[in-house]
Amino acid sequence: MTAEPRQAKRPGRPRGASDTRERILTNARELFARNGIDKTSIRSIAAAAGVDSALVHHYFGTKEQLFAAAINIPIDPMAVLVPLRDTPVDELGRVLPSILLPLWDSEMGNGLIATMRSLLAGADVALVRSFLQEIVTAEVGRRVDNPPGTGRLRVQFVASQLVGVVMARYIIGLEPFASLTPEQISETIAPTLQRYLTGDLPSLY
Amino acid sequence: MTAEPRQAKRPGRPRGASDTRERILTNARELFARNGIDKTSIRSIAAAAGVDSALVHHYFGTKEQLFAAAINIPIDPMAVLVPLRDTPVDELGRVLPSILLPLWDSEMGNGLIATMRSLLAGADVALVRSFLQEIVTAEVGRRVDNPPGTGRLRVQFVASQLVGVVMARYIIGLEPFASLTPEQISETIAPTLQRYLTGDLPSLY
Repeated sequence: MTAEPRQAKRPGRPRGASDTRERILTNARELFARNGIDKTSIRSIAAAAGVDSALVHHYFGTKEQLFAAAINIPIDPMAVLVPLRDTPVDELGRVLPSILLPLWDSEMGNGLIATMRSLLAGADVALVRSFLQEIVTAEVGRRVDNPPGTGRLRVQFVASQLVGVVMARYIIGLEPFASLTPEQISETIAPTLQRYLTGDLPSLY
Repeated sequence: MTAEPRQAKRPGRPRGASDTRERILTNARELFARNGIDKTSIRSIAAAAGVDSALVHHYFGTKEQLFAAAINIPIDPMAVLVPLRDTPVDELGRVLPSILLPLWDSEMGNGLIATMRSLLAGADVALVRSFLQEIVTAEVGRRVDNPPGTGRLRVQFVASQLVGVVMARYIIGLEPFASLTPEQISETIAPTLQRYLTGDLPSLY
């Protein structure tokens, strides 16, 4: 487990380090937006920022953690996705929203929603696309790739429902939808997500 | 059926009329955003714009048509919603997306998506909320209000999936999701929408 030098280093950190961190983040944001996450290496970000790769790792940890920092997400996406590896595929539809809704409802979620809103408004929508296409689709999609070749689409239908919940609940603020408990939302959408993940979707084959 | 003075009048219309139209639209946008659609009357918009109600009706038709014009939607929402009144409730899950997807994919849809994106980005998100809460929820919700009191929520779950499709397909542009045919999306989400509309949703009662 990588430590979190980002927060640990903050107090009393000399001015130069702060500038360097910002320069790394700016270059990371540009390269992730232009080339996607998979095709962007820590090395290329370091080169663009004029620093050593080791320094980037030291400040930000993994590429996923750097991505999260670059788009201002206060959580490593892999911290949510990796534990899902132990969830049986036929329980993902229920477990996925039961993790995400409380997270989004939390204080941490506020930052996440604000980020999503500003990304969607601007040119940086490519960052959301990369995140969903490359990190989420890759992580979950290979487990539900049945019949072969459908995994990516299955996950993207799940993403469409989850993004819609974020919009309806936090951004549009539909009432009474926005005032439901996280459990009410999770339980209502769980069968939908499970069908998208493992159900029969004939029109996609 | 109201004519469409908006387009018919455009060529050769004197400058003063154009200013008046703009002033009506600006005031409509403000009042709809502040008070919602239901609580905003044509009369109050006319008063705010310093014109007669009859002129507002003459230029824009019904309140729904004025709302559509105010938020730059190139279609009267009732033109989509009213024909749905003849669709049996247990076919709405299939019919709704089979109307909306081709519409969104069309040239007319481009304007719609652009509007949605800019509304979501700005303070005018209240306009999207009013539209979904008051027009869509009211129109469809009363038909699926079973058990009584659940109609609004049922429709809002449908809205969450549909808004999610708009986001994933047109705004985020997830691939391969964005390249599916309208039929593939409609058929895949139809059972979801139908379950939200008429299925058993125990956690909501």
